[in-house]
Amino acid sequence: TAPDMISFAGGMPGNELFPIETIDRIYHSLTLKEKQVALQYGPTTGLPSLLESLSEYLKGKGLPVEKNRLIITTGALQAIHILAKVFIDPGDPVLVESPSFIGALSTFRSCQAELISVPLKEDGMDTEQLRRQIESDRPLPKLLYYTPNFHNPAGIIYSKRVKQEMVELLKGKDIPVIEDDVYSDLYFHEEDLPEMELLKATDPEGVDVCYTGSFSKILGPGLRLGWMLVPEEIYKRCELVKQSIDACSPSLSQVIADKFLRNGDIHHYTAAMRIEYKKRGEAMIEALEATLPSHVTFEKPRGGFYTWLQLPEGCDATEVLKAAIDQGTVFVTGKTFDPHGVRNDFMRVSFCNTDAETIQRGIPLVAEAIKKVQGG
Amino acid sequence: TAPDMISFAGGMPGNELFPIETIDRIYHSLTLKEKQVALQYGPTTGLPSLLESLSEYLKGKGLPVEKNRLIITTGALQAIHILAKVFIDPGDPVLVESPSFIGALSTFRSCQAELISVPLKEDGMDTEQLRRQIESDRPLPKLLYYTPNFHNPAGIIYSKRVKQEMVELLKGKDIPVIEDDVYSDLYFHEEDLPEMELLKATDPEGVDVCYTGSFSKILGPGLRLGWMLVPEEIYKRCELVKQSIDACSPSLSQVIADKFLRNGDIHHYTAAMRIEYKKRGEAMIEALEATLPSHVTFEKPRGGFYTWLQLPEGCDATEVLKAAIDQGTVFVTGKTFDPHGVRNDFMRVSFCNTDAETIQRGIPLVAEAIKKVQGG
Repeated sequence: TAPDMISFAGGMPGNELFPIETIDRIYHSLTLKEKQVALQYGPTTGLPSLLESLSEYLKGKGLPVEKNRLIITTGALQAIHILAKVFIDPGDPVLVESPSFIGALSTFRSCQAELISVPLKEDGMDTEQLRRQIESDRPLPKLLYYTPNFHNPAGIIYSKRVKQEMVELLKGKDIPVIEDDVYSDLYFHEEDLPEMELLKATDPEGVDVCYTGSFSKILGPGLRLGWMLVPEEIYKRCELVKQSIDACSPSLSQVIADKFLRNGDIHHYTAAMRIEYKKRGEAMIEALEATLPSHVTFEKPRGGFYTWLQLPEGCDATEVLKAAIDQGTVFVTGKTFDPHGVRNDFMRVSFCNTDAETIQRGIPLVAEAIKKVQGG
Repeated sequence: TAPDMISFAGGMPGNELFPIETIDRIYHSLTLKEKQVALQYGPTTGLPSLLESLSEYLKGKGLPVEKNRLIITTGALQAIHILAKVFIDPGDPVLVESPSFIGALSTFRSCQAELISVPLKEDGMDTEQLRRQIESDRPLPKLLYYTPNFHNPAGIIYSKRVKQEMVELLKGKDIPVIEDDVYSDLYFHEEDLPEMELLKATDPEGVDVCYTGSFSKILGPGLRLGWMLVPEEIYKRCELVKQSIDACSPSLSQVIADKFLRNGDIHHYTAAMRIEYKKRGEAMIEALEATLPSHVTFEKPRGGFYTWLQLPEGCDATEVLKAAIDQGTVFVTGKTFDPHGVRNDFMRVSFCNTDAETIQRGIPLVAEAIKKVQGG
């Protein structure tokens, strides 16, 4: 991105939002022994102290940490990669949402999975399509990957009803679920929390739910720390895979993340981030409503990082992107998130990495670009 | 390991050897902007600043950084894992040394490679055996993995002659080489340096050499930072794989490692470590020579972390280990490092993680255990 481009493309927190003072305080509080631990190899599944503090944190989110096992991973993407290696052989079908998180798609592609896509609606995947895919003549999928809250790129929350229907369809079919939940702390409206209840929190009988999460959105992606919470038997297989891919996750990052949880810093920080991202999200909604042509539609984000604009049929997001760059702004085209890399009448416009004032300046440029392509 | 066990099992630096004061100084010197970079995602192949400083460092080791590309990885094991994913399909033969680094073996196994082993002699792999394996009726191996300097577990240095013979055998056969060089800064005798010249330094025509290395032995394994230096075409394939497995390596670790290189701290630290490990290695040699039964033989280590004891035929290292634990000491049995997991008349006794005084107390217990099993 050129320096004075307004970017709605990034999927990372803005640099100015990182809790640098807190990290400084944590670093200064470390004992010699803790610093030595930070520089040494740790256990493959994670430093015991972080496993303990993270368990407490996840327990606070209603997750069944006692009946499952936790592994610290080198980012949530590594958790998905490990699970893919455990469950997928070349050619195996895998169920994904359309659109879906590009990192997960590329991991499944690198395992040579056959991607079977289920379209998203405004409250989760289309369960009628899911039923058809499961009941088709092809071999049963080896895995279902989904992101329940503040979907990347679609921005939506799954309803309880859709999650319940997914469970009914998957029950007893030996199709484990990866529930990838990296945005759920970044809600704008506390009243959404009941609807956001995780599948893993209910640990439904007959479905193995592998819950994945990350410190990337609630502390800093540069630490490269994520986790998975999985049933015992899956844990053992994942531990072996992790041993062979990076031995253990960075100890220095783990020592810092542990303190961040133990000191309660995480609660203050996520509370502040909810306020800031809500401000940005609302600026985004306001600017879009004020400037978008009426035939471009979007779901108002209720948390997370993204808005997902649907263009009129036949309008190509790549053309809009070219026009937008001329206007001095960028976003990500829809086909990036299409499991089949084709459908391009959507665009992802993120508000995580741009402050409210810049959003107000930048969105009219995006709207202008759409109008240019529509008019042309 | 029980708290008062004397351990010769570990393959990591002793906690007391880490450059904590230097790391403190580096942390305090970081600007706000550098701390923000440390918490943010970085490019998949590594932070530009570290790529630059590491290039300089590797250039100082005679490596052809201009004609190749560098990737920062999450430990050297990840570099091996990425290369394995690039080159190996299930069932493909891979050439490894016997004995070999357990981490590499487990990575190749997780790719379902068929391990073809070539025995080690005192100055490198048995090139006559290598010739036979290459000329056999089986499909050509997809990869050769070897560790040139202060081999783990065998402790040896490859001679120039053996490396030259390997090149002659591999030339034009499309068998890329992973040259895994994580111990070469820890030499005891400067006069060994000419013999230690890397294959990658000569970049021989007709053989793609993929050089891998690590900060684990020259700064701290807890940072989880390694690298690969590879030809352009292999670089592109590796970048795609890394994108799908952890997006990027930890930025916080990279920012610190970059300063450690730029400030010249690495030169002072590795110089100090050479002195300390030499002291430990010599204490080990002295204690072994004073107490081992004469039918147990070993190559005197000239650097690195390990000594490798050959037991008399029929003597089983697992039996010795049991007796050693009774004496209050531990090491690692030979079959751990056998690509086929069988041969067990060797034992790895490391001196990296135990000071000279403890080595002098512990080695007689190891010798005692061997005598007990031999006598029994």
